[in-house]
Amino acid sequence: MDSNLKISFIGSGNVATHLAKGLFDKHFSIKQICSKSLENAKTLAEEVDAEACTSLSCLEKEVDCIIIAVSDDIIESIANEIPSTNALVVHTSGTKDIELLNSFENYGIFYPLQTFSKGTSVNLNEVPLCLESNSDKNNATLEQLAKAITTSYQYINSEQRKVIHLAAVFACNFSNHMYSISKDILDNNELDFKLLEPLIQATAAKISRMNPIDAQTGPAVRKDHETIKNHLSLLEDSIDYRDIYELITKHIIQSHGKL
Amino acid sequence: MDSNLKISFIGSGNVATHLAKGLFDKHFSIKQICSKSLENAKTLAEEVDAEACTSLSCLEKEVDCIIIAVSDDIIESIANEIPSTNALVVHTSGTKDIELLNSFENYGIFYPLQTFSKGTSVNLNEVPLCLESNSDKNNATLEQLAKAITTSYQYINSEQRKVIHLAAVFACNFSNHMYSISKDILDNNELDFKLLEPLIQATAAKISRMNPIDAQTGPAVRKDHETIKNHLSLLEDSIDYRDIYELITKHIIQSHGKL
Repeated sequence: MDSNLKISFIGSGNVATHLAKGLFDKHFSIKQICSKSLENAKTLAEEVDAEACTSLSCLEKEVDCIIIAVSDDIIESIANEIPSTNALVVHTSGTKDIELLNSFENYGIFYPLQTFSKGTSVNLNEVPLCLESNSDKNNATLEQLAKAITTSYQYINSEQRKVIHLAAVFACNFSNHMYSISKDILDNNELDFKLLEPLIQATAAKISRMNPIDAQTGPAVRKDHETIKNHLSLLEDSIDYRDIYELITKHIIQSHGKL
Repeated sequence: MDSNLKISFIGSGNVATHLAKGLFDKHFSIKQICSKSLENAKTLAEEVDAEACTSLSCLEKEVDCIIIAVSDDIIESIANEIPSTNALVVHTSGTKDIELLNSFENYGIFYPLQTFSKGTSVNLNEVPLCLESNSDKNNATLEQLAKAITTSYQYINSEQRKVIHLAAVFACNFSNHMYSISKDILDNNELDFKLLEPLIQATAAKISRMNPIDAQTGPAVRKDHETIKNHLSLLEDSIDYRDIYELITKHIIQSHGKL
């Protein structure tokens, strides 16, 4: 295997930034960062010793891999504009099909299963990478990249990847929204959200040791209808929060009733 | 302050076990463990060098503090059965009013804001304790106990405590239910829930560095209606999951629209 793959990135957002830096740190050669914002492209390019550009027509063909790390909704149009190339062209989306890239000879998926926010660093070493490509040779290339930055990678087909992405929406996006609601409730009563931090961390930590359905605590799983009633009356000024509380509570009671 | 307070527990479940062991480790003297199950009472009593009993009428009066650590719905009836005492009588519930105990001369609340599950150990040192009592003298006693086992305790009145408990239901119980749903979705597709562990931990870890509303990621906050539509079609066999997905997604879109 080639020990010095040349890689270009399309995009300069959170995913591009984390992956480019991660690969650069492992001595891969980052050739170009192409982004519609020259400023963002330059910022990232400087950090990974690459060239910045703003037009897909300027992409150099002589790279081994082009990583498209942009919003899901523009992957297709970007793929259509990339000049003909033999490079392995991959995208990093959890939801988009691999076939979006089948106009290329070599194509695949390099999907990091993680939530990247600006200003928070992520230890890539623990990030599962979901890989898929159209040939064994391309799998080998993806594996070489993945191995360099994480201990956890798997071959996942596009249908499976979409299911994982959906599950991640529940586990990550929706959980985070529960944190937002709890902070809002505390803020409205001049109480400090910091109080809940140990509880939130402990709840998340538990899943590495036990099945979440067995870890369920609280009034719903205890069928403690008096507390549920009191909570709903505390929420009488927020129809939205009441609706969410009622629906999730009902579903916890139902799903534990089946056990 | 008395450096060797004598404490008895009513209850032998998760909360009683964690608190009794925590206080015993800090050299407090645990006098009795009273529980309707003699077996459970004995198991805990042996670990903290205490006496086990099953009847409230056997409670010794000559203790400094009696900690009622039982289900919310039986606190009141237990309080009515405790023989007259000058000891400080407290309960550990997040939802029950302090006034439930006002037939005692000395009464209060010792509420650990944490999720305790059988078989998982909890580092009490990081557990916020919410304290309340009917006098400065009793506050001093509670503070002495709290200080010994945690770095984080606060005086919180009963109304505030109920709000904190409600917020904790969203942040902890409902988040955990989101983990359960995501595991179920993965199980149904023969995919491993372990894949989501780093994502879940990272999502929880973020709240110590940023406001959860700013940390929100995913299709709802991006108003990515195509992905939302695809997710709903993946959930077409589960009306419950669709309902939950739709309601939370709608609320994320709404609440971020207001920003």
